[in-house]
Amino acid sequence: MAMNPQLNRHGELVHLLSIEGLPRALIHQILDTAGTFLSVNDREVKKVPLLRGKSIFNLFFENSTRTRTTFEIAAKRLSADVFNLDIARSSAAKGESLLDTIANLSAMHADMFVVRHSESGAPYLIAQHCSPHVHVINAGDGRHQHPTQGLLDMYTIRHYKKDFTQLTVAIVGDIVHSRVARSDIHALTTLGVPEVRAVGPKTLVPGDLREMGVRVCHDMAEGIRGADVIIMLRLQSERMSNALLPSADEFFKSYGLTEEKLALAKPDAIVMHPGPINRGVEIDSSVADGMQSVILPQVTFGIAVRMAVMSTLAGNSA
Amino acid sequence: MAMNPQLNRHGELVHLLSIEGLPRALIHQILDTAGTFLSVNDREVKKVPLLRGKSIFNLFFENSTRTRTTFEIAAKRLSADVFNLDIARSSAAKGESLLDTIANLSAMHADMFVVRHSESGAPYLIAQHCSPHVHVINAGDGRHQHPTQGLLDMYTIRHYKKDFTQLTVAIVGDIVHSRVARSDIHALTTLGVPEVRAVGPKTLVPGDLREMGVRVCHDMAEGIRGADVIIMLRLQSERMSNALLPSADEFFKSYGLTEEKLALAKPDAIVMHPGPINRGVEIDSSVADGMQSVILPQVTFGIAVRMAVMSTLAGNSA
Amino acid sequence: MAMNPQLNRHGELVHLLSIEGLPRALIHQILDTAGTFLSVNDREVKKVPLLRGKSIFNLFFENSTRTRTTFEIAAKRLSADVFNLDIARSSAAKGESLLDTIANLSAMHADMFVVRHSESGAPYLIAQHCSPHVHVINAGDGRHQHPTQGLLDMYTIRHYKKDFTQLTVAIVGDIVHSRVARSDIHALTTLGVPEVRAVGPKTLVPGDLREMGVRVCHDMAEGIRGADVIIMLRLQSERMSNALLPSADEFFKSYGLTEEKLALAKPDAIVMHPGPINRGVEIDSSVADGMQSVILPQVTFGIAVRMAVMSTLAGNSA
Repeated sequence: MAMNPQLNRHGELVHLLSIEGLPRALIHQILDTAGTFLSVNDREVKKVPLLRGKSIFNLFFENSTRTRTTFEIAAKRLSADVFNLDIARSSAAKGESLLDTIANLSAMHADMFVVRHSESGAPYLIAQHCSPHVHVINAGDGRHQHPTQGLLDMYTIRHYKKDFTQLTVAIVGDIVHSRVARSDIHALTTLGVPEVRAVGPKTLVPGDLREMGVRVCHDMAEGIRGADVIIMLRLQSERMSNALLPSADEFFKSYGLTEEKLALAKPDAIVMHPGPINRGVEIDSSVADGMQSVILPQVTFGIAVRMAVMSTLAGNSA
Repeated sequence: MAMNPQLNRHGELVHLLSIEGLPRALIHQILDTAGTFLSVNDREVKKVPLLRGKSIFNLFFENSTRTRTTFEIAAKRLSADVFNLDIARSSAAKGESLLDTIANLSAMHADMFVVRHSESGAPYLIAQHCSPHVHVINAGDGRHQHPTQGLLDMYTIRHYKKDFTQLTVAIVGDIVHSRVARSDIHALTTLGVPEVRAVGPKTLVPGDLREMGVRVCHDMAEGIRGADVIIMLRLQSERMSNALLPSADEFFKSYGLTEEKLALAKPDAIVMHPGPINRGVEIDSSVADGMQSVILPQVTFGIAVRMAVMSTLAGNSA
Repeated sequence: MAMNPQLNRHGELVHLLSIEGLPRALIHQILDTAGTFLSVNDREVKKVPLLRGKSIFNLFFENSTRTRTTFEIAAKRLSADVFNLDIARSSAAKGESLLDTIANLSAMHADMFVVRHSESGAPYLIAQHCSPHVHVINAGDGRHQHPTQGLLDMYTIRHYKKDFTQLTVAIVGDIVHSRVARSDIHALTTLGVPEVRAVGPKTLVPGDLREMGVRVCHDMAEGIRGADVIIMLRLQSERMSNALLPSADEFFKSYGLTEEKLALAKPDAIVMHPGPINRGVEIDSSVADGMQSVILPQVTFGIAVRMAVMSTLAGNSA
């Protein structure tokens, strides 16, 4: 356990870098904490003073207004001071190294870095080199991990399905390029889901994904038949342009979630999506807006989960 | 009244989308509330806790740092948490629809959207589709309306002139493209101003503006003679390039407000402008900086009026 | 003293525009205040309510995410409301004059402007024209001054060396284009440092710098021999492209600070740098990260010094 850079020697979370290696009890503890914050977001005054006076830096080396905003909301509802660094235009552009930037912000008494980076592993590098009082949250690194998305997906599944150990979960689309899929697979496996399916064409769901303990399905009907949970992934348009896929229409015909296909899953199956959705590409509007869709509740849970992660980290020391 | 999407069934304001359709008493009530906030802005601690814990989102689909800043100031002085979404670089750019963006932010427990959009009606669309607990403020939509500017102009006129029912108000310049002019005309008419004049060349002040109840004047002298209030509009330079106007010099000669022309108005006439001013294009510097100019007081009143609108909306439920 | 636009008639600081003309006692008083804030930054809750309800505007006409962030951190730790104006995209771009922008923000009840501008003197112009209740801080103007950097450098020197009157201080690099160097030279002279050396090639350290009371050294060994403090300046890459310098390699060979060259200074000499550093251009990594480097403590002190400047200004009236 001492090898896991996310945990201190008491097994407490000091950084959130990956779902991989998080013990099941710790995941449930974060989800429990998120549940208490959900009520805060429903209050007249949506604020608790838990992180008052803390300085949280959003370091988005890869731009994502939506994800950055969710962390900013979570931090402000915990009463922290939030600093959004337009990192593309800052010292990084002047040739300063990533680690020098981090050392400087640490010297300004930063308490937490929320990091998105196009290169896998960048948040690990930061966590290894920053001051002991600083906590790092991975907000998406390359194709590697997006752990807060993984946790909010687990919160959503637990909320609607209660018991992970009886479930069949289908993840559909561009699995191989998806850090969301990777985080979800680690989480679902850790939480004891007996059948996790990776569904999509061979170019996006290669057979060696089986090594992660998933059932690989290139046929959509096989993939979602009898599923309790269907997680649709966003199709990046660059997959078409670089010839991994023939066309959006073609993809939708084979793997897009329609009401007809959804009928193959369990009658009470829920439909999830990390957003933003491409209507008519990976999901039909009637499904996205339908009774079984929990896409917007995912967004609501996402704020509470990020508040839970931030407050958990702030309470633990290296 | 149930038809007016801005008002709930008790006739209370739940969105501010347009001056059109606002009852006279409601306008006066907002201006009265603004008066109480004016003193807050003069205090040592310029803050009241009225909107503490509320999440206000600035959604500027059309860029305007100045207007966005006035809303941000107003919100922070009411102790709200403010989120500026760089919407041009966000999910909207990834192909997500306006309504999906709104649904997502609502799911994050947004309390208020301040919307600027280049298309007329966008704030209406948002108000129709957002959750019942969310309030929408139109911060300028296309050529349609800019209601907080209209209200701050009314605050300014009431402050200096007291009684609307005895006034002659001249609006000078590019009336046809101006959402400020449209909001002002609706407000002045509602508040009982007996004579509202629209002054400018035929290309910018067409005759059918008479349908809005204004007197159309293509001659500047006729337009401002005897006026109590002169509202100069900003001349957009693109009007020259698309041949609606010969040149800035030409325009200034005919319709630019100089001391000579101002002498035609009442001796105690006030000069207003929504800013930013083009010195030497629509207004001479000696007038802009002169004794009769109330351009900077308009800016001061604008903060108080936006605080009044925000706190009024927050107090009413759909 | 009435001539100094930074001081009111009681000799109190109302703007911070330049180190030049600041009395020695006033500098020490700011450094003393910074010392008290240093402990705030180490606290669990890094916040004091001194500037609660104050509106501080970051007006960066020249982009600098890092410097802007240090002022934003300082302001928020004093509980002020901070407004970052993306000035390049705002009214300034619409043709509004600098002074009109300032007049408008003053009318919104701004309390403080933090100004960075590519033209020397811009903060003076603003200070001369803004309302009496507004304070201006120069965050770097052209080649002229960067007074908060000067003050944090003095804080650093005082922290490590105690007595200014026994010191030899070498400033190395592109002195002629550096506002940091200019501010440091004024500060060191005022504080009684007996020997200040300006070290670098003739193109970057011309002989007429002697008029500022410094010893000009074109030889690096002569420049740093026996020094107590070495301040390395950042080398702007544009100096190479415009032929003031042959190449980065050439510069490093002659003036880059290596362990060998550092050995010529006093054994307990400290090494400073305003950041961001160019490793291998003006400073070797082993020196930047070495025992004598106080580059990161400078960053920490910088927040406290900016808090001290802001709170000092807020307490004084024009």
